[in-house]
Amino acid sequence: MTIGKNIPRVDAFDKVTGRAKYADDLVPTGTLIAKVLHSTIANGLVKKIDTSKAKQVPGVIEVFTCFDVPDIVFPTAGHPWSTNIANHDIADRKLLNTRVRYYGDDIAVVVAENELTATEALKLIEVEYEEYTPLLTIEDAMNGDALHEEYPNNILASTKYNVGGVSFEEALENNDVKIFEDEFEVPTVQHCFMENPNSYAYMESGKIVVVTSTQIPHIVRRVIGQALDIPWGQVRVIKPYIGGGFGAKQDVLYEPLNAWVSKMLGGKCVKLELTREEGFINTRVRHAMKIHIKSAVSENGRLIARKVKMFSNQGGYASHGHSVVAGAAHVVKQLYQDEVATDVEFTTVFTNLPVAGAMRGYGVPQITFALEAHMENVAKEMNFDNIELRKINMIKEGFVDPLNSIPSLTNELDQCIEIGAKHLNFREKHKKYSNQEGHIRKGVGCAIFSYKTGVYPISLETASCRMILNQDGSIQVQVGATEIGQGADTVFTQMAAEITGITYDKVYIMSAQDTDVTPYDSGAYASRQTYVSGHAVKKCGLELKQKILDYANYLKESEIAVDIKENHVLDKDGNKIIHVSEVALESFYHRENSKHIAAEATHHCDTNTISHGTTFVEIEVDLKLGLVKILDIINVHDSGTIINPKTALGQVHGGMSMGIAYALSEELLFNPKTGEAYNGDLLGYKIPTSLDSPDISCKFVEKYDPSGPFGNKALGEPPTVPVAPAIRNALFNATGIKYNQIPLTPERIFNKVKDKGLI
Amino acid sequence: MTIGKNIPRVDAFDKVTGRAKYADDLVPTGTLIAKVLHSTIANGLVKKIDTSKAKQVPGVIEVFTCFDVPDIVFPTAGHPWSTNIANHDIADRKLLNTRVRYYGDDIAVVVAENELTATEALKLIEVEYEEYTPLLTIEDAMNGDALHEEYPNNILASTKYNVGGVSFEEALENNDVKIFEDEFEVPTVQHCFMENPNSYAYMESGKIVVVTSTQIPHIVRRVIGQALDIPWGQVRVIKPYIGGGFGAKQDVLYEPLNAWVSKMLGGKCVKLELTREEGFINTRVRHAMKIHIKSAVSENGRLIARKVKMFSNQGGYASHGHSVVAGAAHVVKQLYQDEVATDVEFTTVFTNLPVAGAMRGYGVPQITFALEAHMENVAKEMNFDNIELRKINMIKEGFVDPLNSIPSLTNELDQCIEIGAKHLNFREKHKKYSNQEGHIRKGVGCAIFSYKTGVYPISLETASCRMILNQDGSIQVQVGATEIGQGADTVFTQMAAEITGITYDKVYIMSAQDTDVTPYDSGAYASRQTYVSGHAVKKCGLELKQKILDYANYLKESEIAVDIKENHVLDKDGNKIIHVSEVALESFYHRENSKHIAAEATHHCDTNTISHGTTFVEIEVDLKLGLVKILDIINVHDSGTIINPKTALGQVHGGMSMGIAYALSEELLFNPKTGEAYNGDLLGYKIPTSLDSPDISCKFVEKYDPSGPFGNKALGEPPTVPVAPAIRNALFNATGIKYNQIPLTPERIFNKVKDKGLI
Repeated sequence: MTIGKNIPRVDAFDKVTGRAKYADDLVPTGTLIAKVLHSTIANGLVKKIDTSKAKQVPGVIEVFTCFDVPDIVFPTAGHPWSTNIANHDIADRKLLNTRVRYYGDDIAVVVAENELTATEALKLIEVEYEEYTPLLTIEDAMNGDALHEEYPNNILASTKYNVGGVSFEEALENNDVKIFEDEFEVPTVQHCFMENPNSYAYMESGKIVVVTSTQIPHIVRRVIGQALDIPWGQVRVIKPYIGGGFGAKQDVLYEPLNAWVSKMLGGKCVKLELTREEGFINTRVRHAMKIHIKSAVSENGRLIARKVKMFSNQGGYASHGHSVVAGAAHVVKQLYQDEVATDVEFTTVFTNLPVAGAMRGYGVPQITFALEAHMENVAKEMNFDNIELRKINMIKEGFVDPLNSIPSLTNELDQCIEIGAKHLNFREKHKKYSNQEGHIRKGVGCAIFSYKTGVYPISLETASCRMILNQDGSIQVQVGATEIGQGADTVFTQMAAEITGITYDKVYIMSAQDTDVTPYDSGAYASRQTYVSGHAVKKCGLELKQKILDYANYLKESEIAVDIKENHVLDKDGNKIIHVSEVALESFYHRENSKHIAAEATHHCDTNTISHGTTFVEIEVDLKLGLVKILDIINVHDSGTIINPKTALGQVHGGMSMGIAYALSEELLFNPKTGEAYNGDLLGYKIPTSLDSPDISCKFVEKYDPSGPFGNKALGEPPTVPVAPAIRNALFNATGIKYNQIPLTPERIFNKVKDKGLI
Repeated sequence: MTIGKNIPRVDAFDKVTGRAKYADDLVPTGTLIAKVLHSTIANGLVKKIDTSKAKQVPGVIEVFTCFDVPDIVFPTAGHPWSTNIANHDIADRKLLNTRVRYYGDDIAVVVAENELTATEALKLIEVEYEEYTPLLTIEDAMNGDALHEEYPNNILASTKYNVGGVSFEEALENNDVKIFEDEFEVPTVQHCFMENPNSYAYMESGKIVVVTSTQIPHIVRRVIGQALDIPWGQVRVIKPYIGGGFGAKQDVLYEPLNAWVSKMLGGKCVKLELTREEGFINTRVRHAMKIHIKSAVSENGRLIARKVKMFSNQGGYASHGHSVVAGAAHVVKQLYQDEVATDVEFTTVFTNLPVAGAMRGYGVPQITFALEAHMENVAKEMNFDNIELRKINMIKEGFVDPLNSIPSLTNELDQCIEIGAKHLNFREKHKKYSNQEGHIRKGVGCAIFSYKTGVYPISLETASCRMILNQDGSIQVQVGATEIGQGADTVFTQMAAEITGITYDKVYIMSAQDTDVTPYDSGAYASRQTYVSGHAVKKCGLELKQKILDYANYLKESEIAVDIKENHVLDKDGNKIIHVSEVALESFYHRENSKHIAAEATHHCDTNTISHGTTFVEIEVDLKLGLVKILDIINVHDSGTIINPKTALGQVHGGMSMGIAYALSEELLFNPKTGEAYNGDLLGYKIPTSLDSPDISCKFVEKYDPSGPFGNKALGEPPTVPVAPAIRNALFNATGIKYNQIPLTPERIFNKVKDKGLI
């Protein structure tokens, strides 16, 4: 058994020693450097660009502007293609854009022999704009001129769903309920990947090759094909190790531009690497949202009806567009069950801000902040036990989402809560902290979440795997699924070992994806890989094992080989028949029947299941400084079987850190007049360092989920989700103040404390 | 039909524009440079090496000597592994050698930050030797002390075969025959690959990775495993485009040393590139041979019996060892049939010369020079028509080699001869030129050859192929077989197109091999790939096509799809049902049944067949200058179906040029006292430039060979084979002088002409 064991991360040694190759490590000597010119207005038109001075700089190879690019709009969202045109992502940007839609939009690109020259040349480009008033808020945008003419009032989409068949108002008619109402606001935040997006492109063998830091190589291939209007098979995308993505690299970023520039230069190798500042503004951000919740609750604490209205700030281009707020909206129904009616309306609005896209949790951190803060407010106002209120209403095992049929096949939420509560001695402290005086106070808070695993049935889920047997009985495993720092390669290694019976030290996962040879997989997102791609590994492993057994039986002129364990082929009684390395060697070099053993399999996924979990946190707040300190924090997760506890823990630690920062410090701020970011860099943008981070606890409640390849379900994104509301609820516990907006910066905390007269 | 068409070489554009990547183009920035110290004696022992001064040079990382390397001997020949130990290649060298066996043997290696530093440091290494007398000739070696103690008298192996059951002498008893006897000598020559052998090695993901210019990546992987005593699966070999090999790179050269050095430095990337001078001495050369032929011929021109004795100069290490002269020896029987007896004895002798290994033709150019020069001598002495003498005795269709059962399944040698003869008006000219005076004379000559296809049944023949369908209906083709400049990638592309019905512009051959992911194939040698690997392409293409048809039938809910032509799926009546690109797109993205289509297949080869052909040449010789000028030369080949006439022509042109140089100018010369090469560089070694080369003609007689995947058989090596004897025979025709030694340098020609009193 390898599943469930703490095998060392397969990439640990290479990453620690610096051996691991990232895109920039692979750039060939003599590669040209491309640098993008960004608009210095947020809304308007490029009237004219004068590149003459820039072109005169020695070492400048070429300058292309928004007037040079093909008249092709393309989508950038990292979604699998759909053969149904109705499901296509919105195609709304060109490689460079004449119509400027955010401060920093891409309007020209310089290619030079080196970075310094390119940077110097950028400064010499003269741009003439026609300027319009920046529309930065949802309100302004909905009352302003359309940024994309197909979307009047800048509404990308507005959708409603109702569960129960009656409206919120109708639901109240025959029910004795209290009404609770809250308005929440969550900010724009950045992923702050360690490695800035970078790629290099060149032409070879009739193809354009792009080596890039992406989560989704096979999708990047397709989008480059679309953007350049060339057959997708003429595009080859290679993804080496990458330094984090968190969803920013689940969008196709500058790869199409990079590819096009190389193509325009006859296939010369051109590198395009973003600066940290571009990383902030020119990639993707998490959607800022406004969320209004109205709940009707019966005296016994049952949610009778809820009405939720959400607005999502999309920024200048569609990217993942409406699906992020849709993902959020569905969680209203997947976390709690209303007895009579659920009315949800959600709207995505274009504004002149940086583009929002996928980010760890895909809308769910936003809605969970609102839902769980609201739940806490309700409990407080009803004087109802806050844990009990959740338990009464939360979904239970066997729940099936009425909107998309996603089931909660296993649900250990109740146990998660109890473990978290026990860890903090929550119930006692919560009561105790409700009545404090002085400016140093403590508080405890909790929040729960639900999170689906992958995107079936909303979208396609498919994954493939190939395994190749070596002469020494070791194997390579190729998956289209991507290691992005999360440990995917390690769990795939364990899965392959588990299934084939070949020990994990002899399983070599091919970490890099190359769309020309690596089997298809849509990539790292939606916490899907261990679940969906894991099934592909399982299926492929079974096929490989069978081929080894068949060959062993051929060698032994028998049918006795039935299983492999610890590199030995076994008979039905578990007796060792032959070592896999011997089978392998013969399969390569047998003089009468050589047969090079490999297997390849696709898993078409038509299942889904819901992960659950909680955060419990204890804080101390200094009311005079407005400063929150985390004293203890724990996440308890029900993610089914844990394949590798240590790497799982790593995921939880990372996710919780992200959640803590979401709660307390991170927010991308903009000049309200110009739309320029105030703090689009690592100095002004407050992402916590390790010294800012508290000790973190984590526990898993493992129950084998029958739909997972090894009983496992989503864990990648969930750890982030419940953290911010739990911290907010702890602050509520400490102060009695409803903070309905994050981040809970000292300024925000102090202002309300002062208003309330607590100091 | 794509087979037989002149599709453009798939790598032409990349190679012409400089896009094609060779190993040196891929070397990462910051790579360390390794340089080998070579012995300055030919025979002896390294007593002591002082590296202290070298290590003090700033920028020197490390110096390893022959006293530091593992005590492991390994083989280097590019043969597939055998699970039968009796068939293993001789393991007789270490990574660096204390026992020096040729002038230039590897005794130490410097690793430095750059090439200049490494080169400087090399000069500062002080070596103390115990010197022995160099044994440079076969005679000296057989009378000298053993270079390898397991081989007394330096005889690597000596073998005899007899066909007919009676000896040569016994065969004479009841036959009325004339006896003819000749002694031939052929020189040591170098391949003169355009790209010197070079590689770089580093460690990653638990493996040692070596990127190298080789013909045999999968064999290099295995030998590195052997040399470093690590499991073969821990070695990954990548072969990008290479600039020629001709057999020198069918040996494992410095890859094991490169790998070991990197391993010793903790996996740091280290490059090891040979200089041109090292390329001459430290790779492999063609075996110099001495060949004695004695024939008994009846009055009507039938060969009654022959006795052949061959000595092959192996140089200091075994490399391909005895198999090269064995390959030559077998051709005695495969070219002509003796009525009563054939007695062949062949001996391989170690000497203190550079190591001989595989080179285009693998012994057959040597023996064919002797056989065909001898045949000409016999014809002349018997006053027998030289063509007729060949026709009477040469093997015919249906011939089966009595020694190894290789058949001449198709044999168009007779037609080849007639086409060649007609081209030159040979018979008339031959008569006319037999009686000339003056110092400018003309002559015509011809020679025939036979050449088997691949190495079955002498050795294992196995090959695999994988194909991957892209979303646009194009495919990648992965073969372990290697493009080494000969055009393999182009013919595989044509084969894949032919079989799958996907047009060749949509077939992307993956030129680079990566042993971790590329299916196994033993590589480019023995003119095997179009034949053996071609079968793998065919088998895999059929599987891929069937999968596409199956998926088309799934989409159409039918069984009507039966074939693919020009990218369209067809029904049995040839009606178009659906485009392959539509099938492909659905197979990727079908919401109910996605299935990523790929196929992988091994061809275990258990057939062989013989190629045939001729050279006809007309020369002019200036007896005073000893200078031969080629007026007209043609090769006519029976290689079965020609897959691509243009690339085939390229092969023939290259091979004939090599043959012309073998005849006229190339010879690696050594100081008879020290064993140091006199002319181991491109100045002193006379390889012809394009200006030295005559216009070359070529014709093919195509007959479908039933054992070839597309009716094809060997063409890679054969063009070289008959050229030298044809030229020699033309000189014989012009002068009446039996030149039995090549190259026919002005000096050699002049000396005999003078001796004979012709000037």
